[in-house]
Amino acid sequence: MRVDFTKMHGLGNDFVVLDARSKPLPGPITPRVAAALAHRHTGIGCDQLILLEPSATADFAMRIFNADGGEVEACGNATRAVGLLAGGPARIATVAGILETQASPGGISVDMGEPRFEWDAIPLAYALDTLSLPVGWETLETPAAVNVGNPHAVFFVPDCDAVDLERLGPLIEHDPLFPARVNVNVATVIDARHIRLRVWERGVGLTLACGTGACATAIAAMRRKLVEREVEVQLPGGALTIGWGADNRIAMTGPATESFRGSFEWADFA
Amino acid sequence: MRVDFTKMHGLGNDFVVLDARSKPLPGPITPRVAAALAHRHTGIGCDQLILLEPSATADFAMRIFNADGGEVEACGNATRAVGLLAGGPARIATVAGILETQASPGGISVDMGEPRFEWDAIPLAYALDTLSLPVGWETLETPAAVNVGNPHAVFFVPDCDAVDLERLGPLIEHDPLFPARVNVNVATVIDARHIRLRVWERGVGLTLACGTGACATAIAAMRRKLVEREVEVQLPGGALTIGWGADNRIAMTGPATESFRGSFEWADFA
Repeated sequence: MRVDFTKMHGLGNDFVVLDARSKPLPGPITPRVAAALAHRHTGIGCDQLILLEPSATADFAMRIFNADGGEVEACGNATRAVGLLAGGPARIATVAGILETQASPGGISVDMGEPRFEWDAIPLAYALDTLSLPVGWETLETPAAVNVGNPHAVFFVPDCDAVDLERLGPLIEHDPLFPARVNVNVATVIDARHIRLRVWERGVGLTLACGTGACATAIAAMRRKLVEREVEVQLPGGALTIGWGADNRIAMTGPATESFRGSFEWADFA
Repeated sequence: MRVDFTKMHGLGNDFVVLDARSKPLPGPITPRVAAALAHRHTGIGCDQLILLEPSATADFAMRIFNADGGEVEACGNATRAVGLLAGGPARIATVAGILETQASPGGISVDMGEPRFEWDAIPLAYALDTLSLPVGWETLETPAAVNVGNPHAVFFVPDCDAVDLERLGPLIEHDPLFPARVNVNVATVIDARHIRLRVWERGVGLTLACGTGACATAIAAMRRKLVEREVEVQLPGGALTIGWGADNRIAMTGPATESFRGSFEWADFA
């Protein structure tokens, strides 16, 4: 059976979107199917698969799968892409709650919900006021833990480009302090309205742009009054604007792009 | 204007095939267009672009472009893919001459034409009987030069997996001995019917499988009577069967696969 898809990206973070809102897929997204479709030489190629499904509580539901078949709670770039595909304001049910999207001058805006700071909501293994992570010989300074649908550790450093994130990322991701593992953000505050950021994504590795990382980092910086309540976060793949409203909700605005559309034979990948 | 394409691969070497046989593309394949379409996150993603065009001398013509927009003379994997797309026996005009393809029990068979061994046909910078390339501190033994539509240097070594091809490949590719640069093959003869091979492709780098490299290596081994006139060449991406007929023509047989079909907006990539 042939299955249609849309290939999209947000700041280079790319997705194969499968639309099962009106017709279910021929089969489930198993780890085997996810890996086959995500393969960049023999499949369609993507960072994550997105599955759109009907929802009783929102306009539709969105599920996100990594190439290993594991399901992801939240992805800001994916939400903007799906917001573009929706073609207008949309309420999207996700594992991390209902997200609202709409078109805006800067691309697609997503209401990312409220940040969580309690240790058991991050989650951390035990209660801590400040994090100090010994990683090998180094102790990274000023870390903060934030949950914006998924768990983030944020480190403010003088020059985030100088951090060997490829080596430290996996060490921090798997530190016993984080029972659900963690996304690792290293950030440099440029001025009150600009942050530079690199992200090691849990289960993925270094990425060009992580939307939830931008949110978590901006919120952590705002909470310490290092920046104002609206800030541009500059990632290797491009910039996102993050606002933290008086209602405690996070607004993320940035580009989303459709690359191409296509179809594949389900049996070739199942 | 929307443009249809087929995404295909041969042993993991993957292609976006654009069919301009009955209708020309909206514009030329410039380096900018090639790079944008080949980009794996923001484009369709491929090793090479293939353009099918009408031909006065064959069933149709095939042109091959690298991601940098440079045109490639010959690609065995691409020819098998296009042979599959043709749906039956086909005569395909290429820069390297007319290639004939047909379905066979092992996948798609391609008549790759006759090998050339003369120094000015490889081409080499000057006449040489045996190649001995000093590369840094090392001198690789028993190299042979073969042209099978494109230039190849073949090195027979005890264990091709032990060669640091990522370092040596670019040094040999750019050696002044090769005025058109060269594809670098390091091969290990397992027995009279099996060769193991790794290839550094000119202008590309390490690849999973290089069809012309398999041909050049098999011919070089047959010429030295290291193997029989039909041999299986085992590449990291899979195996190809290479035969050298009494008529001096090379037959390459191996798999070709269609991954998916799609369409994109030309203006997004031009």
